Amino acid sequence: MQTLTALIFDNFETLDLFGPIEMFGSLPKHFRIQLVSMTGGIIHNHHGVSLHTSAVTELEHQTDILLVVGGKGTRQVIEDHRFLQTLIKLSDDADWVLSVCTGSALLAKANILDNKRATSNKLAWQWVVEQSNKVDWVQQARWVVDGKFYTSSGVSAGVDMTLGFIADRHDIDTARQIANYTEYRWQEDSQLDGFYNC
Amino acid sequence: MQTLTALIFDNFETLDLFGPIEMFGSLPKHFRIQLVSMTGGIIHNHHGVSLHTSAVTELEHQTDILLVVGGKGTRQVIEDHRFLQTLIKLSDDADWVLSVCTGSALLAKANILDNKRATSNKLAWQWVVEQSNKVDWVQQARWVVDGKFYTSSGVSAGVDMTLGFIADRHDIDTARQIANYTEYRWQEDSQLDGFYNC
Repeated sequence: MQTLTALIFDNFETLDLFGPIEMFGSLPKHFRIQLVSMTGGIIHNHHGVSLHTSAVTELEHQTDILLVVGGKGTRQVIEDHRFLQTLIKLSDDADWVLSVCTGSALLAKANILDNKRATSNKLAWQWVVEQSNKVDWVQQARWVVDGKFYTSSGVSAGVDMTLGFIADRHDIDTARQIANYTEYRWQEDSQLDGFYNC
Repeated sequence: MQTLTALIFDNFETLDLFGPIEMFGSLPKHFRIQLVSMTGGIIHNHHGVSLHTSAVTELEHQTDILLVVGGKGTRQVIEDHRFLQTLIKLSDDADWVLSVCTGSALLAKANILDNKRATSNKLAWQWVVEQSNKVDWVQQARWVVDGKFYTSSGVSAGVDMTLGFIADRHDIDTARQIANYTEYRWQEDSQLDGFYNC
């Protein structure tokens, strides 16, 4: 059993979080999910979602997989030194670090992606790459893997990346079964990017 | 501005709810979102999600669009007379009623889909159709429209249906812009169903 910790914040992007959660949650014998925030309590977003979270200082289980999501709220937390320090600590402790959309901007700002290949959201691309020039940014990719880091492009790409991660850790048949169960049209090729220059 | 009311319950399927919420939430000038449950308070599901909801008896805004999701929890609420009566009242009041996955089983059980064409989740198909023989069940469809009712097949199909609904109410370019913004590979044809007999 591995523990996935998703670190969220106000105005996170809804599907950045819940797409991967649906896919990891489809293997309850393999993955346990912890939704956490800096102080715990209710986290709100701009889609009317109010989510109960635990405090990152009181994690019930050690983090094996860290999930970092994006959204409008990244513009605030990227200026928050304590948030970035927490990201560094969680990333160091985790075996795997996954980001969706502008979540990779947060990792980049905290220097966690230095000298790594990574991708991000297309529409926020300029803002993302301005956060660090030490990252080898890859604009044309559904998701990018470099060592223990999996970074996906915008929103829905997080679902494809999660299934890719599950295929890498288990096997492709397991990932395809989840896609079938959730009637999800999984794009299995991480390099095929229909949203590049679209 | 139209109000979307999503009626949820313990052990709802994560993506059934949050896929459509992401898409409706992308047009904040057009859609306001209310997440409600029978008694209000925190609703939990099997993916570790704890969501704050308002009580259905204390709706802030009148419901224009009702969203009914599915998941394991349907097996309990389908036996709950008060829940089904609430579904009937909300459906009567709404201009549009949308269901995802086994959400259509709940509508069927409450006789809301009598003499309507509707679809549902593939893997729970037998259980769904046993809930009512008065519905014209369509097994091969990404989603089905009949009058004010939009029903989708399993989990991820709810996203395609929501974009289809937005295209019908606004225009296809608006729906395509949302798909592009969220880097979602929208399957625009409601009749194309890659999960039929797969």
